[in-house]
Amino acid sequence: MQSRYYTIHEHPQGLPSKDLFALETRELAPLEDGEIRVRNAWLSVDPYMRGRMDGVTTYIEPFTLGEPLEGAAVGEVIESRDGRFKQGDKVRHMAGWRDVAQLPADQAEPLPEFDVPEQAYLGVLGMPGTTAWVGLNVIANMQKGDNVLVSAAGGAVGSLAVQLAKANGGTVVGIAGDPKKLEWLESQGVTAVSYRGKSAAELSAALKDACPEGFDVYYENVGGDCLEAALNNLRVGARIAVCGMIARYNDDAPAAGPGNLAMILIRRARMQGFIVFDHWEHHTDFINEFGPRVASGEIDYQETVHEGLESLPDAFLGLFSGSNQGKMLVKL
Amino acid sequence: MQSRYYTIHEHPQGLPSKDLFALETRELAPLEDGEIRVRNAWLSVDPYMRGRMDGVTTYIEPFTLGEPLEGAAVGEVIESRDGRFKQGDKVRHMAGWRDVAQLPADQAEPLPEFDVPEQAYLGVLGMPGTTAWVGLNVIANMQKGDNVLVSAAGGAVGSLAVQLAKANGGTVVGIAGDPKKLEWLESQGVTAVSYRGKSAAELSAALKDACPEGFDVYYENVGGDCLEAALNNLRVGARIAVCGMIARYNDDAPAAGPGNLAMILIRRARMQGFIVFDHWEHHTDFINEFGPRVASGEIDYQETVHEGLESLPDAFLGLFSGSNQGKMLVKL
Repeated sequence: MQSRYYTIHEHPQGLPSKDLFALETRELAPLEDGEIRVRNAWLSVDPYMRGRMDGVTTYIEPFTLGEPLEGAAVGEVIESRDGRFKQGDKVRHMAGWRDVAQLPADQAEPLPEFDVPEQAYLGVLGMPGTTAWVGLNVIANMQKGDNVLVSAAGGAVGSLAVQLAKANGGTVVGIAGDPKKLEWLESQGVTAVSYRGKSAAELSAALKDACPEGFDVYYENVGGDCLEAALNNLRVGARIAVCGMIARYNDDAPAAGPGNLAMILIRRARMQGFIVFDHWEHHTDFINEFGPRVASGEIDYQETVHEGLESLPDAFLGLFSGSNQGKMLVKL
Repeated sequence: MQSRYYTIHEHPQGLPSKDLFALETRELAPLEDGEIRVRNAWLSVDPYMRGRMDGVTTYIEPFTLGEPLEGAAVGEVIESRDGRFKQGDKVRHMAGWRDVAQLPADQAEPLPEFDVPEQAYLGVLGMPGTTAWVGLNVIANMQKGDNVLVSAAGGAVGSLAVQLAKANGGTVVGIAGDPKKLEWLESQGVTAVSYRGKSAAELSAALKDACPEGFDVYYENVGGDCLEAALNNLRVGARIAVCGMIARYNDDAPAAGPGNLAMILIRRARMQGFIVFDHWEHHTDFINEFGPRVASGEIDYQETVHEGLESLPDAFLGLFSGSNQGKMLVKL
């Protein structure tokens, strides 16, 4: 049986072009004991994958040139040589960026049984959802009544973070660019602030208008001007959970950082970077709390779906222009 | 009785000149019930005082133009109308920048009875010592065996932080500029790295040479290039205690920050600003642990002493050129 997969043959500089991604085909080896073969139905694209294309180890190993790229995927077992899975089982695993995956069974997990569409386990009930939950509850230690600021608030993680924060009773402000995202934020009772066309100083002033008493928590997905503006609007004792800095992922050279880092001192703030995989022990807590709320429709999650394996590079690159509302997915 | 005191009549821009400081004289009001009069023997000058000259509230109220400046001082009670103090008692209080102070008795504290010179309560056993202790133990949660980096390592706080860190068994590296400071650091078993004449990238490389496996703790007193170089040399899970950013205190306009802030994410590091006064409940723990070690000579603290009230502005301004080794003091 053949597998069609994406690979890259060089490390990109700056924002990759579509040409970087080569769609190739290989014959799969015969299935060995302990392995399963999965027909992928949904593939995830996520900003962190850009870092894996650089060829240097950061918090995760780089992709290997010429080998299939990797990422979260959901699919159906079509052949199994492991007692844990049988044909027809739905699984989540990391052998994405391809149509048919072959992998050790212990690298796949069965989908939980909430009444939700299967692709929800790549977004609202997957890594992005867990990331939002861990960032707010574990890293930022969000408390009842806290004022919370979220950047990239219309994205896969941010759109869940604002809803989790909203349940806590304080003022929640979301930064986004796309008008549809801003509209969606307002529909959630979140004060929406656009970063478009604003300098860091102007964004800072807009945040002050939106929440004059300042923020106890900043959920950071962006970096750059968003961070600078947020630093000017911290309350004493604020916590910043650094989940991502997407504004910087395609920089050729390091851009200067915010000139107001001393606000960390003046406001006695704490800023902490985290990777959700370091805190995966909370995934069960998260899914037990969040699964029923998603199944009941209480959580308003959104998806941007591209169709077909050929659309994968566009879906991935769209993350950096903010073309996704909620989770960016590819349906096969 | 008269008091000679320093005041400022305008808010300085950038590094103040000596002209900023006016030495004035006023007649003290008759002593009221509950007040004491103190002849100051030692005055403290500290970098944080620069922030109080700007006329804006940061983490501490600004100085009032035309009124006596304030700061830590040690002196002897010469008159008391409060049962807690009698003539001849030695006290520490915040009515510095003057020769004779008059203040409510509840704003003074008797000096502890360790066998140390009285000015030690302005440095090694005062605010700077407590700051070093709180930053390492409370904010950075220093653990046995941690590799620790300290900037401004020859200063009042840094020179104590390196000795506290050294007792923990890991590699301790201190950044300083002055050759005498570097020599003193080496005499303490601390690897000394000079920042002078080095770009951020060169300083980063020098830190890597000094401690190839990277730092678990960075005790930050400086900001600017020191922070950028430190960020490149963090271990996973590192903690940065931000005590000060003296490199920025005299900036006219905000200078750009480090371009590598994403290291906070990559190394899952935590960076936290703190003000020692928020953690003063640890002062007793600190002094009980540190007092006997200072009295026995185990702690090698240093002082740079200027003589006479007239030398106060030079002493203060010297802090920003790094002319002090250890605690900068004025002896009256």
